[in-house]
Amino acid sequence: MATLKTSRADFESVWPSLVADLQEAAKKYNVPQNALDWFTKSLEANTPGGKLNRGLSVPDTAMQILKRELTPEEHRDLSTLGWLIELLQAFFLVSDDIMDSSVTRRGQPCWYRQPKVGMIAINDAFMLESAIYLILKKHFRSHPAYIDFVELFHQVSWQTELGQQCDLITAPEDDVNLNNFDMHKYTFIVIYKTAYYSFYLPVALALMYMQLATPRNLKQAEDILIPMGEYFQIQDDYLDAYGDPAHIGKIGTDIKDNKCGWLINQALLIASPEQRQVLDANYGQKDDAKEAKVKQLYKELQLEPRYQAYEEKRVGELRRLIANVDESEGLRKEVFESFLAKIYKRNK
Amino acid sequence: MATLKTSRADFESVWPSLVADLQEAAKKYNVPQNALDWFTKSLEANTPGGKLNRGLSVPDTAMQILKRELTPEEHRDLSTLGWLIELLQAFFLVSDDIMDSSVTRRGQPCWYRQPKVGMIAINDAFMLESAIYLILKKHFRSHPAYIDFVELFHQVSWQTELGQQCDLITAPEDDVNLNNFDMHKYTFIVIYKTAYYSFYLPVALALMYMQLATPRNLKQAEDILIPMGEYFQIQDDYLDAYGDPAHIGKIGTDIKDNKCGWLINQALLIASPEQRQVLDANYGQKDDAKEAKVKQLYKELQLEPRYQAYEEKRVGELRRLIANVDESEGLRKEVFESFLAKIYKRNK
Repeated sequence: MATLKTSRADFESVWPSLVADLQEAAKKYNVPQNALDWFTKSLEANTPGGKLNRGLSVPDTAMQILKRELTPEEHRDLSTLGWLIELLQAFFLVSDDIMDSSVTRRGQPCWYRQPKVGMIAINDAFMLESAIYLILKKHFRSHPAYIDFVELFHQVSWQTELGQQCDLITAPEDDVNLNNFDMHKYTFIVIYKTAYYSFYLPVALALMYMQLATPRNLKQAEDILIPMGEYFQIQDDYLDAYGDPAHIGKIGTDIKDNKCGWLINQALLIASPEQRQVLDANYGQKDDAKEAKVKQLYKELQLEPRYQAYEEKRVGELRRLIANVDESEGLRKEVFESFLAKIYKRNK
Repeated sequence: MATLKTSRADFESVWPSLVADLQEAAKKYNVPQNALDWFTKSLEANTPGGKLNRGLSVPDTAMQILKRELTPEEHRDLSTLGWLIELLQAFFLVSDDIMDSSVTRRGQPCWYRQPKVGMIAINDAFMLESAIYLILKKHFRSHPAYIDFVELFHQVSWQTELGQQCDLITAPEDDVNLNNFDMHKYTFIVIYKTAYYSFYLPVALALMYMQLATPRNLKQAEDILIPMGEYFQIQDDYLDAYGDPAHIGKIGTDIKDNKCGWLINQALLIASPEQRQVLDANYGQKDDAKEAKVKQLYKELQLEPRYQAYEEKRVGELRRLIANVDESEGLRKEVFESFLAKIYKRNK
């Protein structure tokens, strides 16, 4: 059987009609033209343009479960739900970039750094979030899972905000203190800030759309996708230090930025008191020589093979979990296999 | 009949249990203690402490319709809905203060200016918003109006964001250009940024709670409360220049801050070309002498009597609208009379 996969172009073809829906939702209140133009510009600058993996995985999940191509209506609906994840991500990225003082995003200046935008970006982020519920109401008001969709977006937003909050207060850039870090906090941040919205949300939406969101199916999805999302973020942290900038498209700055990442947390677990002093003296500072000292210590601590051992163990666990999926209520192992295939040993 | 009115103390007595509910919603995910403490502090610093007029008007509206005191259960439920408006307002105020570079709020430094907070306040604002839906789900999941409550909060958030956006892009503090202003934009900003969440929302919530939210009742409420909210904001703009700082608790800065307010928009309508030049040369600058020149021109243009004429006309219209309210579906004129009595000729 040919692989059932949504093309990026097919997915993108749904976007313009959603922009039109959102413009309608503003026009019905007679918004002044300057406000309508601004909103459109923010939608276009912040929502498309990423990898779209999260959005694409909503129709992909549905096809793997249905074992067939989607009807035009299913394609439109499931792609619309996928775009809502991209809107949720846009809401978070626009605001995270302000909170992190980031400079660029997807090769462009961050939205808040674009001419005339500045802190208005905060309200623009709110409007990206509101767009989710406007579209849900317009397209899914009479779907049996309507209230479940709404509650799921609320729940996942709340989870992501909890993770982001913990990240921000644990690793302020201007107050380096490695005592703040530990693996419990690290795991909490990763699961809540990333795994729920990136891994659980697309599958849960597809299940709800197909009316297969039984408690058992949702629980199985969560039990596999949350550890998979955790693994994905740990990879990200690993690639920040050990990935090839030519592949990952950026130069890692986690050490300089005092990030509460997997590598530093592992280092803290196993460092001798002398090694700990090296970390305290050099982590989280905008200084190439200090960053190099931290990287040298990571080498001494053999963090690279430690990561590889972690990866093999975690992937083994995930494969066992997937093999044991109960398909009696309509869930299928292929959903999880395809997620895992996309990320195992990725280099970007 | 004695006036049916919710005391501030009775309303405030409901708040601690809502804080406990929200802490539960975080604890169920095993949030690290530092994150839980931070969230609690943000809730307490940003939600209570204002005038609470919006929140109080939910149980007040219900009592005026029921013509009796509330049962303990009704009091708790309606006060809870009232606190959700206060949470919505907290969400907006925390973020507006960043966008406006404000310094103080309710006599304290703005949340984003408090120690260690800074831009983390953006995520704190999101969490205040999420709190609305967490509490709705916990307390009203089985209420027949549950989805109506949720959709109403979405709608009013969207409307408020549209108004805030138009305000921000029309009157940037660093780009004074009075050509940006006009009464259409002004009216749009006022209605969407203030009137919906401050006036329409509390009455709509009370009607929904009592299952009296018929299309006709909602339409009547909107048709009266939106012009009333517009009047309220015009009063605010008037008091900024003509109110007694001892009464209103602050010194007005709208002229210096390049605000798109009622007075400047009225001045632009009637100014001669020479007077317009005075406005162009002096509005929106942090300079006492320039502010005084604008105020002098407002005097020449007789804006104070112009406001008083506007007020009498608008209040007459509102009284006629109220007199014509159709009470056959359970709405009562007293709801609107009591709103109007609170604001007519207020001096603070």
